[in-house]
Amino acid sequence: MKSGGATNRTQVMRLPNRGDYSQETIHSILDAGFLCHVGFVVDGQPFVIPTGYGRSGNTLYFHGSAASRMLRTLASGVEVCVTVTLLDSLVLARSAFHHSMNYRSVVLFGAATLVDSVEEKTEALRVISEQIVPGRWNDIRWPTEQELKATKVLALPITEASAKVRIGPPLDDEEDYAMNVWAGILPLRVHAEQPVPDPRLSSEITAVPDYLLHYGKRPI
Amino acid sequence: MKSGGATNRTQVMRLPNRGDYSQETIHSILDAGFLCHVGFVVDGQPFVIPTGYGRSGNTLYFHGSAASRMLRTLASGVEVCVTVTLLDSLVLARSAFHHSMNYRSVVLFGAATLVDSVEEKTEALRVISEQIVPGRWNDIRWPTEQELKATKVLALPITEASAKVRIGPPLDDEEDYAMNVWAGILPLRVHAEQPVPDPRLSSEITAVPDYLLHYGKRPI
Repeated sequence: MKSGGATNRTQVMRLPNRGDYSQETIHSILDAGFLCHVGFVVDGQPFVIPTGYGRSGNTLYFHGSAASRMLRTLASGVEVCVTVTLLDSLVLARSAFHHSMNYRSVVLFGAATLVDSVEEKTEALRVISEQIVPGRWNDIRWPTEQELKATKVLALPITEASAKVRIGPPLDDEEDYAMNVWAGILPLRVHAEQPVPDPRLSSEITAVPDYLLHYGKRPI
Repeated sequence: MKSGGATNRTQVMRLPNRGDYSQETIHSILDAGFLCHVGFVVDGQPFVIPTGYGRSGNTLYFHGSAASRMLRTLASGVEVCVTVTLLDSLVLARSAFHHSMNYRSVVLFGAATLVDSVEEKTEALRVISEQIVPGRWNDIRWPTEQELKATKVLALPITEASAKVRIGPPLDDEEDYAMNVWAGILPLRVHAEQPVPDPRLSSEITAVPDYLLHYGKRPI
C-alpha cells in the first residue's frame, strides 16, 4: 500500500505543494467522479481512452467489450495509468500567466487484472453502475451469463496513487493587484436536466425514478 | 492530412459505426471543449495528464510549466495521444448490459513540437485563453518575456485524428422492452454558477464581465 506516500512515478513534480497522497483524499476524489481516462502503451505508442469506472474499497473497476483494443491490451497485464479529473472552477487572474483552474485529480498506476469469476464480475458491474447512477442497479435486468462473457472487467488496485488539488482565488503578482480588471473564480457544475424518455417507453410507465429526478449537481 | 481517413492507430476498433473521421466533426468536438487528457510514455510507463488546450486551424496548442515532466518529455518529440471527451448524457437501458453514455470524443496522435518564437507562443496562449474563456484575453495583462520563457507551449498537428460519437436512446434487447422499468436518457450539462470575486478585488471593481455572466452551458 503506497497511497500514503509517493513513489517515483506518483511523485507530483510540478507545484509539489498541490500534491496530496492521503488515501482519504484519493478515495473522495474517485468517489465524486465516474469517468476516467485510461492510458496504456501498444508498441511504444500511448493510447488514452475514456471509460466509466467504480470504486470498491481499494479497487478501481472499469469495463468494456471483450473485443476492444483497450481491454485486450490491458488484459495482458500491461502497465496502465488511470486519471480522474474533476474540474471545479476557472481561476481568472489579472495576468494571463496566473490564470488557472481549480480542480481535483487522481492519477493511478499499476497493472490491471481481469476479473474472472461470475460473482466478482457481477459485483464489479454493480459497483460501476451504482457509481454512475446510484439506485439504478435494483431496477434493471442484471447481466446474463452470455452478457458476462461478452464483457471484460478489469480491476486496478488503488495502491500507487497521487492526488492533485487546487482551490482558492487567483494568485497574482503583487503589482498586478492594482489593475482595473475583474478577478476571481467562475464555478462550474454539472447539472442533470430533465430526463428524456425512450421513444419506445411504454405509455404506462410515467414515473421517472427519484434517483434520476434528484441526480443533483456533480462536479465535472 | 489523414483526418479524412483512418490510419492503423486511429481506426476505431469497437463499434466501428460510431467512428467518424470528418475534419468538420473533429474540429467541432475540439471547439466545444477546453480540457484534454495527454498521454505519453516515459521508460515504457504511460502517463495521462489533464491540461487546457486551444485549437487554431489545424493545430492543437497546449501548455504548461517549463519545469513539468510532461512538458520536458513531450518537448523531446515523443509520440503523444491527446483525448478530448465531452459527456452529453447517461443512457439508461432496461438491462445493465445496454447501459451506455452519449458522448463525443476525439483522439489525436502525433509528435508535439515546442513553439519557439515569441510571436507564435503569445498567439498560442491567446488561442488557449480564448478557448477556455472567450473574451478574457483583451482584459488581462499579457505575458512578459520572462513569463513566456517560463512557459512551454506545445503544438500538435490535427492530422491523425478520430472522433467517436454516440447519440440517441438506449438500444435494448427486443424482449426487454416489455419490462416495467423507466428507460431513456439523462442529459448532463455544465453550468457556470455565480462568479466569486477575488477577496483582494478592489471594491471599485463591481462589474462582472459579460463573458463570465453569460458563460452559459457547455457539455462536460
